[in-house]
Amino acid sequence: MPHIVPNRSRVKLNLGIVLVSGGLDSCVTAAIAAEHVELAFLHLNYRQRTEARELVAFTALAEHFRVKKRLVVDISHMHQIGGSSLVDESIAVPEEETEAGLPNTYVPFRNANLLGVAVAWAEVIDATSVYIGAHEEESVYPDCRHEFFKAYEEMIAAGTGPQTHIRLQTPLIALDKTAIIRRGLELAAPLHLTWSCYQNTHKACGKCMSCRLRLAGFLRAGIKDPIPYD
Amino acid sequence: MPHIVPNRSRVKLNLGIVLVSGGLDSCVTAAIAAEHVELAFLHLNYRQRTEARELVAFTALAEHFRVKKRLVVDISHMHQIGGSSLVDESIAVPEEETEAGLPNTYVPFRNANLLGVAVAWAEVIDATSVYIGAHEEESVYPDCRHEFFKAYEEMIAAGTGPQTHIRLQTPLIALDKTAIIRRGLELAAPLHLTWSCYQNTHKACGKCMSCRLRLAGFLRAGIKDPIPYD
Repeated sequence: MPHIVPNRSRVKLNLGIVLVSGGLDSCVTAAIAAEHVELAFLHLNYRQRTEARELVAFTALAEHFRVKKRLVVDISHMHQIGGSSLVDESIAVPEEETEAGLPNTYVPFRNANLLGVAVAWAEVIDATSVYIGAHEEESVYPDCRHEFFKAYEEMIAAGTGPQTHIRLQTPLIALDKTAIIRRGLELAAPLHLTWSCYQNTHKACGKCMSCRLRLAGFLRAGIKDPIPYD
Repeated sequence: MPHIVPNRSRVKLNLGIVLVSGGLDSCVTAAIAAEHVELAFLHLNYRQRTEARELVAFTALAEHFRVKKRLVVDISHMHQIGGSSLVDESIAVPEEETEAGLPNTYVPFRNANLLGVAVAWAEVIDATSVYIGAHEEESVYPDCRHEFFKAYEEMIAAGTGPQTHIRLQTPLIALDKTAIIRRGLELAAPLHLTWSCYQNTHKACGKCMSCRLRLAGFLRAGIKDPIPYD
């Protein structure tokens, strides 16, 4: 009989939902969440260009973390509402950032919509936390700021039943891409299974804003990005 | 040449989105909103039992108010997430209210999800307000309370771009069903075009919680409900 029994196997953990796009940030967020909660994975398909590839990454991550509760939800009304190059195929994805204001990869009120689904599911499965891998460091999106998530958590408290207590967890909020990669390496997160590119679906393009942020992060972290590039 | 020109025809009104289910409350809300803004109508189909009948009411109301900007959005992930008799056909709709706690017609975090879509659309079409016909008087739903809408409006401010200013308008919040019907009559709102029943799709059942609240309201207002009952 083994004399070391991992403590966690005897403890009933609370359930935590992780929003998993399949990218680097959600992978590291899942690795952090796995330290605290039993994982439930939620993937939201809003018909972004690279949805099929993201779903491959989501499934690979769910297998890696042995996640039983998984939900893939089509919120393609984001597509119908439009207003962004990520969902509107008539708008070209820019390789360079726009000169001023919000980049056109901005999806209107995206995180509020994603979190709305996550919190509804949390109510149904009795999850006590929702994890999202947003970070404000390199972002110009208003719905990636700490201030937004704080306001969202207060809104959850006001809008759910008296028995419901759902916390919003944003463990990457103050990290930049380099620090996220380093945190992932510390936790042995499966970064090789992730997908970040906005443009292609086979090999990453290496040119879009998302690829460039990712590559710069690996460069500064001093290790090679394990995924293939064009 | 006519010597009376309606002033409003010369003024460019701000655009306001009204969440229109097709029920009494959204009809009166639209009539109130029409006093202040150019109307845009948003109908959300979450595969509730009576969706087809609600859509008939929505279209009739949109024609009545001569609304050009209309959006009907399928958010059937509410169906997929389940947890309520309004979206889950395996749970019977109760004629009597449940004895304690939330009734099982509660859709988890419903208003937060509906408003998320409305605010995303508001960003795209430059609407400056979103109207919702919620009222806390006769409701046990946590996401129908003033406190929730206040928290939601603060979250909108935190989560949208710096150029965006979207107010949440809840003109019925402090009214009961009788007062809503009276307000509708004052504004000549087309109450005969509305649909409230949770159960049937041809003639209203008169028995479900929604029908009973409606009928009691008309009774107290001292007028006959203009829609047909079973």
